[in-house]
Amino acid sequence: MTASANSGDEVVVYDLDPDCTLEDVSEGNYYHATVNGVVDYGVFVDLSDSVSGLAHESNYEGSYAVDDDLVVKLTEIRENGDLSFEPADLDDYETVEVDHDYDISDAGELSGAVGETVHLEGEIVQIKQTGGPTIFHVSDETGVVPCAAFEEAGVRAYPEVEIDDVVRVTGQVDERDNSLQVEVDSLDVLSDGDADDVRERLQAAFEERAEPHETEPLVEWPALTQMFPDLEAVARQLRRTVLESRPIRVRHHADGDGMCASIPVQYALEQFIAETHQDPQAKRHLFKRLPSKAPFYEMEDVTRDLNFALEDQARHGQKLPLLLMLDNGSTAEDVPAYKNLAHYDIPIVVVDHHHPDPEAVEPYVDAHVNPYLYDEDYRITTGMMCVELARMIWPPITEELRHVPAVAGLCDRSKADAMTDYVELAESEGYEETFLRDVGEALDYEAHWLKYDAGRNLINDVLNVGNGDGDERHRELVSFLSETAESEVEDQLDAAMPHVEHERLESDAHLYRIDVENHAHRFTYPAPGKTTGEIHDRKVQETGEPVITIGYGPDFAVLRSDGVRLDIPEMVTELNEEIVGGGVSGGGHLVVGSIKFVPGMREEVLDALVEKMADAEIDEELQSTTVGHEQDD
Amino acid sequence: MTASANSGDEVVVYDLDPDCTLEDVSEGNYYHATVNGVVDYGVFVDLSDSVSGLAHESNYEGSYAVDDDLVVKLTEIRENGDLSFEPADLDDYETVEVDHDYDISDAGELSGAVGETVHLEGEIVQIKQTGGPTIFHVSDETGVVPCAAFEEAGVRAYPEVEIDDVVRVTGQVDERDNSLQVEVDSLDVLSDGDADDVRERLQAAFEERAEPHETEPLVEWPALTQMFPDLEAVARQLRRTVLESRPIRVRHHADGDGMCASIPVQYALEQFIAETHQDPQAKRHLFKRLPSKAPFYEMEDVTRDLNFALEDQARHGQKLPLLLMLDNGSTAEDVPAYKNLAHYDIPIVVVDHHHPDPEAVEPYVDAHVNPYLYDEDYRITTGMMCVELARMIWPPITEELRHVPAVAGLCDRSKADAMTDYVELAESEGYEETFLRDVGEALDYEAHWLKYDAGRNLINDVLNVGNGDGDERHRELVSFLSETAESEVEDQLDAAMPHVEHERLESDAHLYRIDVENHAHRFTYPAPGKTTGEIHDRKVQETGEPVITIGYGPDFAVLRSDGVRLDIPEMVTELNEEIVGGGVSGGGHLVVGSIKFVPGMREEVLDALVEKMADAEIDEELQSTTVGHEQDD
Amino acid sequence: MTASANSGDEVVVYDLDPDCTLEDVSEGNYYHATVNGVVDYGVFVDLSDSVSGLAHESNYEGSYAVDDDLVVKLTEIRENGDLSFEPADLDDYETVEVDHDYDISDAGELSGAVGETVHLEGEIVQIKQTGGPTIFHVSDETGVVPCAAFEEAGVRAYPEVEIDDVVRVTGQVDERDNSLQVEVDSLDVLSDGDADDVRERLQAAFEERAEPHETEPLVEWPALTQMFPDLEAVARQLRRTVLESRPIRVRHHADGDGMCASIPVQYALEQFIAETHQDPQAKRHLFKRLPSKAPFYEMEDVTRDLNFALEDQARHGQKLPLLLMLDNGSTAEDVPAYKNLAHYDIPIVVVDHHHPDPEAVEPYVDAHVNPYLYDEDYRITTGMMCVELARMIWPPITEELRHVPAVAGLCDRSKADAMTDYVELAESEGYEETFLRDVGEALDYEAHWLKYDAGRNLINDVLNVGNGDGDERHRELVSFLSETAESEVEDQLDAAMPHVEHERLESDAHLYRIDVENHAHRFTYPAPGKTTGEIHDRKVQETGEPVITIGYGPDFAVLRSDGVRLDIPEMVTELNEEIVGGGVSGGGHLVVGSIKFVPGMREEVLDALVEKMADAEIDEELQSTTVGHEQDD
Repeated sequence: MTASANSGDEVVVYDLDPDCTLEDVSEGNYYHATVNGVVDYGVFVDLSDSVSGLAHESNYEGSYAVDDDLVVKLTEIRENGDLSFEPADLDDYETVEVDHDYDISDAGELSGAVGETVHLEGEIVQIKQTGGPTIFHVSDETGVVPCAAFEEAGVRAYPEVEIDDVVRVTGQVDERDNSLQVEVDSLDVLSDGDADDVRERLQAAFEERAEPHETEPLVEWPALTQMFPDLEAVARQLRRTVLESRPIRVRHHADGDGMCASIPVQYALEQFIAETHQDPQAKRHLFKRLPSKAPFYEMEDVTRDLNFALEDQARHGQKLPLLLMLDNGSTAEDVPAYKNLAHYDIPIVVVDHHHPDPEAVEPYVDAHVNPYLYDEDYRITTGMMCVELARMIWPPITEELRHVPAVAGLCDRSKADAMTDYVELAESEGYEETFLRDVGEALDYEAHWLKYDAGRNLINDVLNVGNGDGDERHRELVSFLSETAESEVEDQLDAAMPHVEHERLESDAHLYRIDVENHAHRFTYPAPGKTTGEIHDRKVQETGEPVITIGYGPDFAVLRSDGVRLDIPEMVTELNEEIVGGGVSGGGHLVVGSIKFVPGMREEVLDALVEKMADAEIDEELQSTTVGHEQDD
Repeated sequence: MTASANSGDEVVVYDLDPDCTLEDVSEGNYYHATVNGVVDYGVFVDLSDSVSGLAHESNYEGSYAVDDDLVVKLTEIRENGDLSFEPADLDDYETVEVDHDYDISDAGELSGAVGETVHLEGEIVQIKQTGGPTIFHVSDETGVVPCAAFEEAGVRAYPEVEIDDVVRVTGQVDERDNSLQVEVDSLDVLSDGDADDVRERLQAAFEERAEPHETEPLVEWPALTQMFPDLEAVARQLRRTVLESRPIRVRHHADGDGMCASIPVQYALEQFIAETHQDPQAKRHLFKRLPSKAPFYEMEDVTRDLNFALEDQARHGQKLPLLLMLDNGSTAEDVPAYKNLAHYDIPIVVVDHHHPDPEAVEPYVDAHVNPYLYDEDYRITTGMMCVELARMIWPPITEELRHVPAVAGLCDRSKADAMTDYVELAESEGYEETFLRDVGEALDYEAHWLKYDAGRNLINDVLNVGNGDGDERHRELVSFLSETAESEVEDQLDAAMPHVEHERLESDAHLYRIDVENHAHRFTYPAPGKTTGEIHDRKVQETGEPVITIGYGPDFAVLRSDGVRLDIPEMVTELNEEIVGGGVSGGGHLVVGSIKFVPGMREEVLDALVEKMADAEIDEELQSTTVGHEQDD
Repeated sequence: MTASANSGDEVVVYDLDPDCTLEDVSEGNYYHATVNGVVDYGVFVDLSDSVSGLAHESNYEGSYAVDDDLVVKLTEIRENGDLSFEPADLDDYETVEVDHDYDISDAGELSGAVGETVHLEGEIVQIKQTGGPTIFHVSDETGVVPCAAFEEAGVRAYPEVEIDDVVRVTGQVDERDNSLQVEVDSLDVLSDGDADDVRERLQAAFEERAEPHETEPLVEWPALTQMFPDLEAVARQLRRTVLESRPIRVRHHADGDGMCASIPVQYALEQFIAETHQDPQAKRHLFKRLPSKAPFYEMEDVTRDLNFALEDQARHGQKLPLLLMLDNGSTAEDVPAYKNLAHYDIPIVVVDHHHPDPEAVEPYVDAHVNPYLYDEDYRITTGMMCVELARMIWPPITEELRHVPAVAGLCDRSKADAMTDYVELAESEGYEETFLRDVGEALDYEAHWLKYDAGRNLINDVLNVGNGDGDERHRELVSFLSETAESEVEDQLDAAMPHVEHERLESDAHLYRIDVENHAHRFTYPAPGKTTGEIHDRKVQETGEPVITIGYGPDFAVLRSDGVRLDIPEMVTELNEEIVGGGVSGGGHLVVGSIKFVPGMREEVLDALVEKMADAEIDEELQSTTVGHEQDD
């Protein structure tokens, strides 16, 4: 029995809530009552929906009519449950309200209560109609439990109940198909006030459970640690999303850094989901990771993602997901896709290190973490950020992640000062630098062949994260894959190198051009973008001087430069204006990028492009990276 | 006890069916019996398989031998169930046959009979072998219920029972995994006569339940209402197909009209399935909708569909589906696919408004509805017909469909007189005409990116049908999608327009040619067909004169004309004959179509084509439509 | 009670195993015991983990300390289970070890034991974590049964138990969801010695059950029968793989012979799986067949296969599969894929008739069957071998397979002497030779449209194997498909033939060249490889003289010859060396093959190729076959 404190020494008269039961009353106490029947020998009074009894006429004088309110004293509770009252005429008393004491159980702790009737309070997080009952998934501070309510076979029970409603459920705990379920006796949406209380309690509990762990950075690096508060906010939002049973869908760049970013986050979230959800399938329902072949979120991808999300909602009553963009998502090219999602309840979180366009992106995203927003740059790779993010979500995996930032940095040729520390950290775990490069090469190679598939277990083996005691397999596999990848790169370059055209620009920079459509194999590894990169790297090494390389196909060109300042977005804008009917578009930044055009205007576009490059300023500090927007199919 | 009426006042002797039980006999009545045992103290007689008893020798004279037939009077039914008879020697009597009164239950009404033994009569509509029992789905007038028969784990029970057999099932109703199931005690295939009776009864009931609703047309339009009887026949067949638990697979044109046709039909059938099948998964098992990228039913698509259908049959014991072709399916190009299906039990129903070839198509289809068969034409769009069809199947959705015919008509540029009424009807529901166009544009855009996916929920939001209270989301989404689509069309035309070549034909018509492979972006929106159409529309508007537009790629050309009579099928036939090694094929009709050829002969083919066009007759009445057979990417 | 025999007449003292129970002891016997407690009135002694009792101080002199070992006589077993002992001082005795007599049940024979507690001994073949218990699949000599162990909802029970462990399970047999399951009371990994015993027993039983059937060859043909021992070894390994619940994944050439090889093996294994596994889903979980579009095992395919296998392992706790390569797999081009698998526990078995490279392949495969290894050649087709293999696995299907070798031989134009016998055999089953050719054509046609799909039921209908009583459907379908295929070949040749270029080589052979990219339709049937083959066949027939045909596209050429000895691998090696930047690769052998190059070097490559061909030796014996390495997309 929960009752507000009695502050004075006046007599207390209890006012029972309608759902109070016998358990809430005691002999000798005073209660507010209402007459609900008048008979010869007395009046019947109600104290609540289920508590009522007789005041015998011998116990009072005068007369009562139905619906009269009065105060009664509970004189006797008989063995058979009958109650006897006598009306009381009190001059001065204090009224105390009594709620029925529900003895609310914890949704996450029902295994000991099989066969018992319990009461739960929580939020509805999923509603699924079966051929029999309707299954309401009720979430409280401690977990989520399915509650089966039967109206009629296949008919929606409690049609007024919706996702996010706060409810009180009474039912019997049952073990069914190897998991616990509550057979619903009653399910009530709480009134606004009560709901607010519960919601507040849940919120508070969720906030507490969502709170990320405090972690020490893997290496001392102020450039990165200044971003910790933002990463913690993301960690909090992701943990919170899991607690709310909202699915998380990750879209990431299908390259080495993208994998180094997304695999640790996946691993951390899977652990957290396993801890917080009883259903072992939950980690598949609540988490999905997909690589994006394009360097941005394409309309085709967002259409597919949205379609699947709506299908899951319709079929399984799931919430719409949160979208987590990793190593992608910071640019204006992502905005059309974000706009498409804006019409649905799908929060967007971005962790990226590509040159961002915050003005374009931020109206559509809930969180945006990018080193450029801190006056840093791509050298802080997404993998480096996400290893820390993963540790904030689930610290015990730290052990398995120590080598990952080094792989991420090597993949993206990060020139960060911290790279030395990261490589040393990895070496202390037994990873030689050359082997770390091999891991990167192997990730690239597998990403190529997996295409649109996440390849979870395969990639975990390659990266040696979350793959059990697969160390030896990891080593062998990386060696095999990186050797195969290298040998396929050799084959590609054997075909392409003799056809690389060279000219010396006025600026004295070397310009190399290669027709990757006609002088390289298509639909194989390496794809045009990487082929161009490999040629470029060799030429940089060969000459030791400023180099620009253009790898072009029928309707695209991949650009790479070292020691020359190409402002690619500026070039694209100019080309688009100057070349009528060229259909020029593209992206990138200073040293790397790609452009698209219509095939019939290739010559004009390339000529104009080379002319612009001839004017480009020499800046020997600028070194190429792979962090651009390359066409790589 | 059911017994034929006794018309005279002779004594009645009952002749029991072998399956009669104690319930079918009464003390004092006369019965035909057979001696099955002779003992000292009398003879044992059988009245049916389970009704037998003793005639004590004190009650008769003479003697009986085993297998003697006689008439007996039932003198006593004792408490323990033993029966006493005495032989009767009647001169004159009437024999009345008695069937066991099974008190047949309704398959659709078993929820009140959990724990009881029931008898069912119905048709087997699915047989599925599990690791334990065999599950027979039995369908009667009222519904379908799974009946589990256990022979031995994983072994087929009642191997003689096949799909479509009429059976009598006795078993206990059980609630299992949240749905009802009958645990089979006995399952008998009815003998031909009995089966015919039941089948007849089921047929009659099915016919009644399959009967479409009578509806008033949305607008007064004799051209369409004359087609109502044919549409009603289709509605009847579809409802009937659902009742028979045969899946329906829809293949539809992946454009605006195709969506306006298929979405309402899907919505209507889903409601009807939900009403008639307890299993909430039924609407997914029994209905599948897929867009066809080609303007006809390709061999690749039919191969895939057939493969899936056979797989569902093998794995889930499902019936083969009915194929419903919407906004596709009327032409000779569909015939090879139909021929492929002809070897399987897969009925085909076509509702289309493309120029039909009834002679080619009709030998293979069960129903063919097309306005050309009524001397009408493409102006009655498939969407207009299918909204009426959907209402015949399930009238309560009318409210949500009022704007759909207008969208369908605008998508296909229908010049029907009724368009004004349709647009007004839509406006009365709050849809402005410009917005209806935007819906069409948005449908096209989503169809493009969804590719081979139906995108059920997404498209329902775009069309605002069956998407709950998603009105606001619908409006926002359509605005966003149509704006994006328009802007992408602009980009495409910016690239293409400067390369459109113009010449004036002898007929004085304008001829525009555009190389959509070299002067437009590929693999993006809009695809070549739509790109050509947009160029054509602008030129028509620009010139106000007869215009032909050819958009060509390496091995195809898309044709559009206004004010010129191109007989495209005729042209294709001629080109194929004239150009040796050209590999010319194609389709379409007067003002729109496409042709294919081998890349090496493109120049010859296009030159010859233009020559033919120069001779084409001017007919300013003829206006282009999008209802053709375009190659669209 | 199992006890080693007592050979002498000394007193026997039994030494109980720790898991012995009351059932293993008898009054009057002597036992080894250990003191585990000393009290005033005597000592408590342990005979095993659960057998203990009191030796009253009245029954002995002297004193005992805890952990003393002694011999006791069991004097009384009381009704309540208490035991009384007296210490015995024996001079001479023999010790006999007693194992607890488990009365081990058979995993495959539990249907009669529902509700009873049983003991099982077997190997763990699958471990699956559910939201409730952990499910261990235990396999013994007689079958596989799921055993559910509950620790806590969703928590892995017995985490120390791994796949391949030998265990003893005690639990109650339960019927759950229509199949049998054991509710685990205890599950112990057997100690090394015991495990070895059980494993040995299981091995022996498996070996016996894995033993293939002895079959008579379908036709007398020593060339093939000499290969029977190798085929039997493969049959044994496949049956054994099924018994061990390891999945089998088949990758096969997507052509007629590849189908004739893989369909019978699939059919045989499905029967065997059905016999040995209770779960009717087992045949889908344990067998998967996929066509390979390339003529070798591509990196993309192996990546996908490995990814799925790892996913099945992670999600369903399945073993990694065995890979069975059929009509593919013997060449060096397969080795990179094999190397990729080598890092996982995935055995590889190859049955192929393409020109093998045993040195390259055999380090990676468990078995390699190929006629070339017996100095035979491609004329023994894979379909011929695999029909015999399928019969060894499951002889009762012989009836349905008699026509298959003939189809296989006709598909691959086998010139084997046995072809006559095979065709006669097929004719005796009612298949005319022309119809057998039609079946081959139909298989090719369906393989084309099915693309990456196995199309199990469709192909079974085409080949008339395992399709029930589908004879008539088979005949109709084959006629339809082969006619359609022929007519599409005609269309393709109509376009291509006028563009075939002819020259007479110095060797007097005819050389025909066709640009299949520009003078044939792409993405349709027939694909470039088959198109080239059809042209070649016509030219051979037309001329009756030595003919070489080259069908080339932008980056490939398909080669066919009759009467000329082309050593294609040699040519490829030379071209690759001679043509710098040509990127030439390829495969094949004497009369058939294909080469790839980069598009920009096509002219150089083809010119050099033709030059080499001009020098090629005439050898009229050599006839083309389709068994090559053609690019056929």
